[in-house]
Amino acid sequence: MVHRPGSALARLTPSNCHDLLFDDVIWVKQARADHMTFVDAMRYRGTEVVFLRDLLVETLRIPEARAWLLDRRVNEDTVGVGLADDLRAHLSDMDADPLSLILLGGMSRAELPLEEGGLLGRALRPEDFILPPLPNHLFTRDTTCWIYGGVTLNPMRWTARQLETVNIAAIYRFHPDFRDADFQVWWGDPDHNHGLATLEGGDVMPIGNGTVLVGMGERTTAQAVGQLARALFAQGGAERVIACKLPVERASMHLDTVFTFCDRDLVTVFSGVTEGIQAYSIRPGDASGTLDIRAEKHPLVQVAAEALGLRKLRVVESGGNSYVAEREQWDDGNNVIALEPGVVVAYDRNTYTNTQLRKAGIEVITIPGAELGRGRGGGHCMTCPLIRDPV
Amino acid sequence: MVHRPGSALARLTPSNCHDLLFDDVIWVKQARADHMTFVDAMRYRGTEVVFLRDLLVETLRIPEARAWLLDRRVNEDTVGVGLADDLRAHLSDMDADPLSLILLGGMSRAELPLEEGGLLGRALRPEDFILPPLPNHLFTRDTTCWIYGGVTLNPMRWTARQLETVNIAAIYRFHPDFRDADFQVWWGDPDHNHGLATLEGGDVMPIGNGTVLVGMGERTTAQAVGQLARALFAQGGAERVIACKLPVERASMHLDTVFTFCDRDLVTVFSGVTEGIQAYSIRPGDASGTLDIRAEKHPLVQVAAEALGLRKLRVVESGGNSYVAEREQWDDGNNVIALEPGVVVAYDRNTYTNTQLRKAGIEVITIPGAELGRGRGGGHCMTCPLIRDPV
Amino acid sequence: MVHRPGSALARLTPSNCHDLLFDDVIWVKQARADHMTFVDAMRYRGTEVVFLRDLLVETLRIPEARAWLLDRRVNEDTVGVGLADDLRAHLSDMDADPLSLILLGGMSRAELPLEEGGLLGRALRPEDFILPPLPNHLFTRDTTCWIYGGVTLNPMRWTARQLETVNIAAIYRFHPDFRDADFQVWWGDPDHNHGLATLEGGDVMPIGNGTVLVGMGERTTAQAVGQLARALFAQGGAERVIACKLPVERASMHLDTVFTFCDRDLVTVFSGVTEGIQAYSIRPGDASGTLDIRAEKHPLVQVAAEALGLRKLRVVESGGNSYVAEREQWDDGNNVIALEPGVVVAYDRNTYTNTQLRKAGIEVITIPGAELGRGRGGGHCMTCPLIRDPV
Amino acid sequence: MVHRPGSALARLTPSNCHDLLFDDVIWVKQARADHMTFVDAMRYRGTEVVFLRDLLVETLRIPEARAWLLDRRVNEDTVGVGLADDLRAHLSDMDADPLSLILLGGMSRAELPLEEGGLLGRALRPEDFILPPLPNHLFTRDTTCWIYGGVTLNPMRWTARQLETVNIAAIYRFHPDFRDADFQVWWGDPDHNHGLATLEGGDVMPIGNGTVLVGMGERTTAQAVGQLARALFAQGGAERVIACKLPVERASMHLDTVFTFCDRDLVTVFSGVTEGIQAYSIRPGDASGTLDIRAEKHPLVQVAAEALGLRKLRVVESGGNSYVAEREQWDDGNNVIALEPGVVVAYDRNTYTNTQLRKAGIEVITIPGAELGRGRGGGHCMTCPLIRDPV
Repeated sequence: MVHRPGSALARLTPSNCHDLLFDDVIWVKQARADHMTFVDAMRYRGTEVVFLRDLLVETLRIPEARAWLLDRRVNEDTVGVGLADDLRAHLSDMDADPLSLILLGGMSRAELPLEEGGLLGRALRPEDFILPPLPNHLFTRDTTCWIYGGVTLNPMRWTARQLETVNIAAIYRFHPDFRDADFQVWWGDPDHNHGLATLEGGDVMPIGNGTVLVGMGERTTAQAVGQLARALFAQGGAERVIACKLPVERASMHLDTVFTFCDRDLVTVFSGVTEGIQAYSIRPGDASGTLDIRAEKHPLVQVAAEALGLRKLRVVESGGNSYVAEREQWDDGNNVIALEPGVVVAYDRNTYTNTQLRKAGIEVITIPGAELGRGRGGGHCMTCPLIRDPV
Repeated sequence: MVHRPGSALARLTPSNCHDLLFDDVIWVKQARADHMTFVDAMRYRGTEVVFLRDLLVETLRIPEARAWLLDRRVNEDTVGVGLADDLRAHLSDMDADPLSLILLGGMSRAELPLEEGGLLGRALRPEDFILPPLPNHLFTRDTTCWIYGGVTLNPMRWTARQLETVNIAAIYRFHPDFRDADFQVWWGDPDHNHGLATLEGGDVMPIGNGTVLVGMGERTTAQAVGQLARALFAQGGAERVIACKLPVERASMHLDTVFTFCDRDLVTVFSGVTEGIQAYSIRPGDASGTLDIRAEKHPLVQVAAEALGLRKLRVVESGGNSYVAEREQWDDGNNVIALEPGVVVAYDRNTYTNTQLRKAGIEVITIPGAELGRGRGGGHCMTCPLIRDPV
Repeated sequence: MVHRPGSALARLTPSNCHDLLFDDVIWVKQARADHMTFVDAMRYRGTEVVFLRDLLVETLRIPEARAWLLDRRVNEDTVGVGLADDLRAHLSDMDADPLSLILLGGMSRAELPLEEGGLLGRALRPEDFILPPLPNHLFTRDTTCWIYGGVTLNPMRWTARQLETVNIAAIYRFHPDFRDADFQVWWGDPDHNHGLATLEGGDVMPIGNGTVLVGMGERTTAQAVGQLARALFAQGGAERVIACKLPVERASMHLDTVFTFCDRDLVTVFSGVTEGIQAYSIRPGDASGTLDIRAEKHPLVQVAAEALGLRKLRVVESGGNSYVAEREQWDDGNNVIALEPGVVVAYDRNTYTNTQLRKAGIEVITIPGAELGRGRGGGHCMTCPLIRDPV
Repeated sequence: MVHRPGSALARLTPSNCHDLLFDDVIWVKQARADHMTFVDAMRYRGTEVVFLRDLLVETLRIPEARAWLLDRRVNEDTVGVGLADDLRAHLSDMDADPLSLILLGGMSRAELPLEEGGLLGRALRPEDFILPPLPNHLFTRDTTCWIYGGVTLNPMRWTARQLETVNIAAIYRFHPDFRDADFQVWWGDPDHNHGLATLEGGDVMPIGNGTVLVGMGERTTAQAVGQLARALFAQGGAERVIACKLPVERASMHLDTVFTFCDRDLVTVFSGVTEGIQAYSIRPGDASGTLDIRAEKHPLVQVAAEALGLRKLRVVESGGNSYVAEREQWDDGNNVIALEPGVVVAYDRNTYTNTQLRKAGIEVITIPGAELGRGRGGGHCMTCPLIRDPV
């Protein structure tokens, strides 16, 4: 599942982009073209690609799904007394297609189809948002994550992304492709305030052998990792979770910005960060519902190899001199997406890292990153794998 | 109700103070002495002063109150799987007095009385907090507010203050002085995630005549003001709410930082901000549960006078030249607390504003502000009036 | 004169780019290709293009020029006692070509070809700079400006750009194409500390009729504008300077980011800023060396029209709705370069503004801006016109 | 030499204080009282105290001194064409006393005693400064430093402090107490742009035995230390300079914020920083004008002891737990001034550090730090020792 750049990204301005977690504004038209290049590359290799917006439109055609979503998006806590009823009524009658644009791209005060708009409508300037845009939907990896036979509905770290989970939860709950499918919701409930227990998919890697790597950094907390581990163990979803303590910095906000798999036994890493990761193995404890937590003595790369039953992992580091390494990690040089073992999609601009991968025998398909990369996410972040063939 | 500076303020360091909404660290010992000077000044004028910590200790002696509080402070979302049970068990057995210190001042990793502390305990550095300190309890005005015959339990704007509401809600719910008293909870529920509907007491002023002023700025939103107005109207708590749209800036974070009453007909204001306030009068609408909202054409001072049935309000502005005005507003020159009509407590450092107030016939009792003022709050912020004599 | 993206831009990292006045790192290889597209577009229309680096290399082949430059770049104030002599000796013996790379792209501690490097060499980390890179040389417009029959050697606002003036001053002083040419240095001396009197070429527009527009904003000060005006008047360089007071913000750092000429009578503007510009006309005063300064009552567009003897200027505004306007101004939508009246080069991404220009009859040649625009400068900033045909 | 808080500090507002290197605004009246407490404490112990402002007034009475100062403060680079002449004429005729207030406290646009004020006067808002205030004159330690038989005129790191050196240089050059005294100017010239070679007195400690410690951190650079060392060696001012490489952070901006002497053999340190200091010993090299630089293998405390011929230094560390340590270092707990061996003046608020010093046998005289400390400087920073008795 991917999400094409669209109306939400067109809302970004130099004034608001940092609040919306982007470093710069984006040329949306070009980003759409670049994203289609990405989609085509995946399709060409046999990957089936579905679009979040199509799923959302189809979901919105189901009356109870629409009601469920509007309950959570348009209420007195989000838009205030009076406006909640009026706007809700208006959106209930809309076609699914334009409504999906609003649920993804937001609605500014200037676009409000009501004259007065309650107290909120009076208090806002024309360019302020009545309903916020969700530009980070682009990074479908983060909002939910499929782990073996089930999925998590992630409580996101920052307010700017929390409503994404509501949109996708509605799809999984009501859309026929998912409603009737056989999967578990391992953990996460958009109706519960998880507080400090936040989890984002860029930190979660089901690497096989019943094992899941989970980064703990700026976005994912120890509180969430413990809950996830227990939920997986209780429902038979996994046997071991390896928590990876990251430094809290924007450059390494998710584990997949410094560590991704390219082949069965090959990872690309930003060693400046990964060398500092402390791994903890979590397994079911003796008593029911308890956890057995052990600090690992070896580096993450070695712990991951051992978990996969390999003697060692081959490692491709980003960067040449210190300037290049820092630049290419920043530009998502390590955030590649493997379409199949040994075949990855990467941004064109990370020429050094891509060359190293090719020298290691990896097929590297490049896509333009000039626009897509401005939210600090690469191919790995922009994909949410729904079904994987077993390795 | 006031709160003496204590353990929470001793946690402030140059590194963490901004996250905890303070501009600088504080000399706690001196702040305690200065705060007692403040309390003595109030008592000397016949005000009965109660201390938040005393109330909390007495509340914690009631088993169900303690359980209610620990449910909300120590759980798997706040401290994670495993640690939640162990820490909860430990705190359940503690004396009320030291427990109150932890619920107010937090607990660092180094202080955790358990060896391993689950995944969270392993992930934190010694100086990180397992339970966060709540230094802004000092400003008791904000967390809840008494409006005529009832109270609101405020959903605070920033995470750093949200747990304050849980502490005070427990007191109102379980402490014998409140449990058996006759009052309404108008609005606010610490078990509900109010989302964008946030309200802070520094914005709320029940000025008499069934009227309540409510600032809408950095901390209090239109969403909350509408809900509050409807709740007050429905329960007979007030007849008119005047919403005051403030600019979103730290210097004017609450209405009471730029506008407070000193006498029946005298206010002190920072005209640089108050001149830009747009007032909206909210009254019950024709249909049940609806609001009648009207933009006022006159400045706030005039609207407030009219609401009180006065021909005009006398106004004392802070500042002399532009430097002094900006400095004294910053140092809470307008954030005075009236002990009775015509008698206010103010910080000593705002000599220009204090002199102007005295020239206007106000008795100004000064207290030291060098330490207490570093969280950007004055006497008005530091008091939560529980019972007022009618003017 | 232009400068191809090169070694200096390859130094940018997420950690240092803000100090070097860039918002993000750049893919240099692509930026070079895009820049050649820009150069080709200019050449195709008959513009002669010279490269700063070629001029610098040719200048460095002249011994006295090289000595003059090294005196100013490598001395005890820039690199300290001991290292000054050793490094100077080393650079004096280098070929002109690699030396030019160092004078433009800097030298890191790791690249220092000396073992110990004095106290500075010991104090720095490998990635710190002994000689700083000058990535903003890309924007050749700013460093010096040709005004009718002469040039200014600009004292730049920020330290990160001040050494650019030394490089270009050396070219004008020693390179045969300039040394023997007939022009005046109107103002500016790289050997004088101009203090608050700073001037940047993006603010300077000789619009014809003996008139020069000069923006006063973040980069160019009133102190410099007064000195420039007097110098121009004294030497017969101009008859009228129109000082344009801009707001001090990054988005409008230079006049040419919000206002440029596309045709004899057509300007493209960001009206959100230009409407707030206050123009002052400066003419020679009665006494020698004095200035006659008058505040203009009309908007800048009208003042400029009148100065050119036109009834009015046609105006193309950037942006459609407020989001697009803010985005395209940020992406240099108004920072176009006119190759001849009615023909401009613009970034491809500003589709709205470009379409408006085309509707107004302007020929708009687009070049890729994804990389080049990350330093917040467009075609206007990236060119320093040495010789113009009269309009 | 000290400087009483005065008009410059009254200029600080929440908007401008950070540009002027202060963390908060100050209650000037109270700061003056607290400063007099400090002065009295010094006088009571037999220290002769002179006030910078008295010296400046006396200097301004000398016509050539006044001309020298006005040349450097009021010229076309500082205030622009036209205004330079008019304002200079006005200030030339003023009494020395009010003129000193302007040279220390600045002049706002609103205070300009001229109608139009050239282009600068037209471009500024009433509260902008025509001549900037110099609030950091409070920290007289930094601007110049007396090292054995001479003095340095320091090129300050930040623009906000560079003009202080001009004021004090005028005093040393023209005031009868200095003009006729027997001392050298070791290094520094306010008429030369020292570029990267910046030096501040808080980093300079002549500890005896011909040795000078010099911190290299945010403010003092290797370029300056090398020049200073060579100048001292050439003129017989010292035999050894120990350069101390500090981390570049505000909390440790000068060496004296983390390391000061309290007694012949006792220092107070913030070990969190001092343990990371790398010391380099600089001695005259074999050839004239060269330096012999050697990295020391031992910690600074041990190197300093050895330089003084002591077996070891006794050390008092600031702080108890990590919160207190960080707070008291921030509040200048280590920035004490020794009036004589074993007698120091310290801020009252650093109770932990002061108690430790007393336990070590030091007499600690406390002064109020609530106001004076807001510029992040203590007693050491606020004093410039002109003449010391030999230890």
